Amino acid sequence: MDASSRTALEHNLRIVLVGTQHPGNIGSAARAMKTMGLSSLVLVAPEKAPDRDTHAMAAGADDLIEAAPVFASLAEAVADCRWVLGCTARNRRIQLEPLHPRVAAGRALVAAASGPVALVFGRERSGLDNAEMALCNGAVHIPSNPEFSSLNLAAAVQVLSYELRCALLGDTPEPAASDEGVRTPPPSGDAATHAQLEGLFEHLATTLDAIDFHKGRTPDSAMRKLRRLYLRANLDAAEVRLLHGILADSERMARLAGQRAGSSEIL
Amino acid sequence: MDASSRTALEHNLRIVLVGTQHPGNIGSAARAMKTMGLSSLVLVAPEKAPDRDTHAMAAGADDLIEAAPVFASLAEAVADCRWVLGCTARNRRIQLEPLHPRVAAGRALVAAASGPVALVFGRERSGLDNAEMALCNGAVHIPSNPEFSSLNLAAAVQVLSYELRCALLGDTPEPAASDEGVRTPPPSGDAATHAQLEGLFEHLATTLDAIDFHKGRTPDSAMRKLRRLYLRANLDAAEVRLLHGILADSERMARLAGQRAGSSEIL
Repeated sequence: MDASSRTALEHNLRIVLVGTQHPGNIGSAARAMKTMGLSSLVLVAPEKAPDRDTHAMAAGADDLIEAAPVFASLAEAVADCRWVLGCTARNRRIQLEPLHPRVAAGRALVAAASGPVALVFGRERSGLDNAEMALCNGAVHIPSNPEFSSLNLAAAVQVLSYELRCALLGDTPEPAASDEGVRTPPPSGDAATHAQLEGLFEHLATTLDAIDFHKGRTPDSAMRKLRRLYLRANLDAAEVRLLHGILADSERMARLAGQRAGSSEIL
Repeated sequence: MDASSRTALEHNLRIVLVGTQHPGNIGSAARAMKTMGLSSLVLVAPEKAPDRDTHAMAAGADDLIEAAPVFASLAEAVADCRWVLGCTARNRRIQLEPLHPRVAAGRALVAAASGPVALVFGRERSGLDNAEMALCNGAVHIPSNPEFSSLNLAAAVQVLSYELRCALLGDTPEPAASDEGVRTPPPSGDAATHAQLEGLFEHLATTLDAIDFHKGRTPDSAMRKLRRLYLRANLDAAEVRLLHGILADSERMARLAGQRAGSSEIL
């Protein structure tokens, strides 16, 4: 998705706070939204108007609060919306089967392509009432600990906004079709070639001989383990050179040790 | 997954807060954890000990704070961990490719089956320092708005804990080993502990000195690259022993070379 279509979609993703009791929570919800790139905040009949606490908690997301329209009812706040989703605790006596936030975010994005979409968050203590839920096309529930489900308002806005951002960025990692044997790219991107790796393994084998690592055992088992280890690490070319350097110095020490012992086995 | 294996996994998922500046944030992080079913909180050198603010913000998650061990350093807090993941802002000068929270959560769950896993959150203002990041096997970054990326500590803990819970409940696609940035778990499953890895790095440092690898250069850059390489490889305990063996033989050769030269620099 290009930046301008993302901006258009973001603009259509509206967070609606209904009957918020603590003005500070409006600020922290705005902050949570803005960290995830959302900007359309709408307030419905807050118990207190945004105040100093609101701005203190907004921590730089004041622009969202200043731009936020205030409506007397949820019906007015979502009148122009294509899709309205109510955030709800589990076990509410609601008729709507709650969606997982991830599923909800994906559907919200699809709907936002054709018009405004509202995610609606209720009062801190009591959530949304039945008449408000009846205005919603769907419900979303954050899977919380049943024994301690008290997500605060900003935390719930954070989680939903995060899922919306993941959906918008489209970078949600998909499991790959095949895992075994696929190499993770090294951080630099300059992955060692197979020939470079084989060169390293040859050098490793001669060095292990030179430092008398095997002490009479067959080298196969150790070499197999080392190959596996270094292949798993997905070395880049610079790392291969670094390891060559260490091996060269170990060999040099072995040669010196041998020379000074008057050994005849020196290269 | 049945409830008892979930409980065992949850127990192995540790949230580590490093150098937290505001005691209230320890409380809100604990609350965020508990809403998502996590309970293992560890503190590293908080600027102030948990106080009244902490408990006010915990809003019922006080049990996590009371049970939280306090360590003087991150190294001690993660010494027994199988996998350590640092939560980081983008554009840090870190060498680790940051994982998406979803990938990190899936990977953390796999690692938690064999031992404790730490998710590490730094200071409110400055995050984790370079030495702390160097203790991490991986980095995780919450994809935030580049123009307003100021997630507060509790919000970051909330998002990561949410992803862990989604992964635990099994309603997230399992990231495969080949996902970008995912470190392949060691084949034996007997992952090296952090203390074992640090022991290996110490041995590596003394060996590089002994074989005169640095030749007057400062050792920092090479050691940083080597740490990164071996942390990425997710060594198991047998591999750590194998590498110790190679280092010991290299040191032995250096000692012999020195002895036979009549050097006085011998151990």
